[in-house]
Amino acid sequence: MQATAEIQAIPIGSSVSVRKEVERVVAVLREQGLIVEPHASGTDVEGDLQRILDAVQAVHETLHREGAVRLITNIKIETRTDKAPTLAGKRLMSG
Amino acid sequence: MQATAEIQAIPIGSSVSVRKEVERVVAVLREQGLIVEPHASGTDVEGDLQRILDAVQAVHETLHREGAVRLITNIKIETRTDKAPTLAGKRLMSG
Amino acid sequence: MQATAEIQAIPIGSSVSVRKEVERVVAVLREQGLIVEPHASGTDVEGDLQRILDAVQAVHETLHREGAVRLITNIKIETRTDKAPTLAGKRLMSG
Amino acid sequence: MQATAEIQAIPIGSSVSVRKEVERVVAVLREQGLIVEPHASGTDVEGDLQRILDAVQAVHETLHREGAVRLITNIKIETRTDKAPTLAGKRLMSG
Repeated sequence: MQATAEIQAIPIGSSVSVRKEVERVVAVLREQGLIVEPHASGTDVEGDLQRILDAVQAVHETLHREGAVRLITNIKIETRTDKAPTLAGKRLMSG
Repeated sequence: MQATAEIQAIPIGSSVSVRKEVERVVAVLREQGLIVEPHASGTDVEGDLQRILDAVQAVHETLHREGAVRLITNIKIETRTDKAPTLAGKRLMSG
Repeated sequence: MQATAEIQAIPIGSSVSVRKEVERVVAVLREQGLIVEPHASGTDVEGDLQRILDAVQAVHETLHREGAVRLITNIKIETRTDKAPTLAGKRLMSG
Repeated sequence: MQATAEIQAIPIGSSVSVRKEVERVVAVLREQGLIVEPHASGTDVEGDLQRILDAVQAVHETLHREGAVRLITNIKIETRTDKAPTLAGKRLMSG
C-alpha cells in the first residue's frame, strides 16, 4: 500500500542542538529507498507503507546504537484508496 | 525493542462522527497483543516496537477494507535505552 | 469557541527524565481554568479555544523562565459546530 | 517570543479532497504576517508566538465560518532561549 508520511525524531537528554541526529534520520530514510523531502519541521517521505514503517524502526535502532538514550518520534501517515498518495500531489504552489 | 506510542487515526471524507472507526482502531490494537489505553485524543499503547508498527499497518488495512477512502494517522513513538519505557511509568498522578 | 486539545511539551537539551517539566505543564494548564486530564503521552484539555492557546503561551514562558533552553510542543486542537466538543464525549469505554 | 511552528488543519466530515481548506489555511497564515512555507504534510511558519497562536484561532474561525463542521489541527511549536529559532536555521541541505 502506497503512503506518504512525515517523520520527526526528537532526541531527549542530548544536547540543545540536534542537527547531527536530524541528518542521520534523513540519511537512514534515504537508505530505505523512499522519496525523501526534508523541511524545517520534519521530513516528508513517500513509498510503500511497510517500507516507511521499517524505516521508522531503522531510525530508532540507528540513533540508539549511536548514543541517543531517549527518542520521541512524531509520525503522520496518510493512505487513500481512490488514488495513489504522492508528495507531489499534496504540495501547494507556494507562490 | 520495547516502546510506548500514541496512535490516532483520522478518516477523511467520512461522516462527522468517527466513533465507529475509533472503536475499530482500538479493537485492532488489542488484537495485536499490545497494552492499550484509549483516551480522549488517541490511544496509548505499550509493547514491542515491531509489533506496534505492524499494528499501524493493520489499522490502515482494516479501515480501508471496511470502507475508509482516506486516512491520516498521527503517531508518537518513544523508546529509551536506560530503562524499559512503560505507560505506567509515564503517567502522572492526576490528583 | 469551545475546544478540546492535547498538549505535550518536550524539553530539548535537558536531562533524560522530563518528569519535572511535565508536572509543571500540567500545573500551568490547571491554573488556566481548563479541564485537565493527563495521560501517558500528553495532557488532554477542554475549554475555550482562546484560553487553551493562552495556556500554550504560558507553558512556553514558564518552562523557559525556569531554565528550559529549547522546547518543542505537540498540540492537537479540535473544534466542531454541530455540538460542543468535550473530553467526556470523546472517551470510549475501555472495558 | 520568537517561534517556529508547523500547522496542519484536517477537516472531518468534508469531502475526500481537502485542497480548498488547505489553501484557505495558507492564506489565513499569510494574512497574519507570518513567514509561511507550505510543504506536503502541513505548513511551516515563523514569527512571534502570540501571533502564531492568534493565527491558529483565525484558522479555526475562518474554516468553520466557511462551512467546516469539524476540524482537527496538528501543531508543533518550537521556542528556544539561546538564539532566535528560524525556519532557515532548521532546514537541512537536501542535496
